[in-house]
Amino acid sequence: MIFQKEISITPLSRGFHIITDVITEVILSSGIMTGTAQVFILHTSASLTINENTDPTVLLDFESYFNQSVSENQDYYLHNYEGADDMPAHIKASLLGASVHFPISFGRPRLGTWQGIYLGEHRNDGGSRKIIITINGE
Amino acid sequence: MIFQKEISITPLSRGFHIITDVITEVILSSGIMTGTAQVFILHTSASLTINENTDPTVLLDFESYFNQSVSENQDYYLHNYEGADDMPAHIKASLLGASVHFPISFGRPRLGTWQGIYLGEHRNDGGSRKIIITINGE
Amino acid sequence: MIFQKEISITPLSRGFHIITDVITEVILSSGIMTGTAQVFILHTSASLTINENTDPTVLLDFESYFNQSVSENQDYYLHNYEGADDMPAHIKASLLGASVHFPISFGRPRLGTWQGIYLGEHRNDGGSRKIIITINGE
Repeated sequence: MIFQKEISITPLSRGFHIITDVITEVILSSGIMTGTAQVFILHTSASLTINENTDPTVLLDFESYFNQSVSENQDYYLHNYEGADDMPAHIKASLLGASVHFPISFGRPRLGTWQGIYLGEHRNDGGSRKIIITINGE
Repeated sequence: MIFQKEISITPLSRGFHIITDVITEVILSSGIMTGTAQVFILHTSASLTINENTDPTVLLDFESYFNQSVSENQDYYLHNYEGADDMPAHIKASLLGASVHFPISFGRPRLGTWQGIYLGEHRNDGGSRKIIITINGE
Repeated sequence: MIFQKEISITPLSRGFHIITDVITEVILSSGIMTGTAQVFILHTSASLTINENTDPTVLLDFESYFNQSVSENQDYYLHNYEGADDMPAHIKASLLGASVHFPISFGRPRLGTWQGIYLGEHRNDGGSRKIIITINGE
């Protein structure tokens, strides 16, 4: 059995945001009890990853780390006409990835106790973001 | 329904290359209308990722970024007998990943407008590369 | 057909470890001949990735690279009360990812000749780790 749904995330500020609840809601609505979920973001300057779901300073440290690791205004950037945040956003999107995947068990996302789903918004003004959730299961 | 096909990519120069068309062709041939695609590269010194599909300077900036971020000839490298490009190639392969995954909708890859599939060739002379595409769907 | 199994990995030292054999054993037990495997770790300070399976120095170079690339004791870390290794562990977990995915062909993991499955233990004392393997196939 396949279930697929597109959702839209309202504009978020640059940085990392936990979106576990909205994804869980879609999964619960699918009626699939056991399987795999694929959560895919349709953009190249935002990302999805799974990390710590409790202490909000982890989200802030992620933003600091990736800003330091993928600097703006590098001399070697050729793709710079969409703003200083644009090329770093593309690189961050690939370092973190456009999708997350996790098991479904007993009709729910089977995440670890401390795991949540992060949306990384890497543009200063990224606008709303589209996500497609596809579940394979039974 | 499961569809699986192995393809071979002719040797590419070191750097990033868009391979969306060849992957799309395989997906169209599967006849699967809704589901998930897994595209997996059978190598540890090349990678797959999803990023911007229009401006070729993004591909060049990716190569520059990863060359700077994963330097050759680090003093601490122990695995260096296959050439200066080898250990960095392994690290880049894991930073970016051996697979990409995206939804299938209406019989086609459901990618965002600006998304393409990149093959990252991280060796100077990587030779041809094998990829397996597996689709779960209906 | 869906197959799902949870396994526990006994405590490993900080660094990278090849766990291909234990994953392969689960896949063989599933009886699924063709499909996709999802291997998911239920933690935010350990990771899964696919890389070179033969020379143990690659594992050591991975540990060196990620320690250098994601430094401990950065001034900007706010999340630091769980130890100097904690925030770097979270970042490494997202750079490498919480899951790996590969094809199943002829009832076996369809990995490249040189590919193995790595567990990255990013804490000094991470304890045992839980992994869920889910296979979609036929």
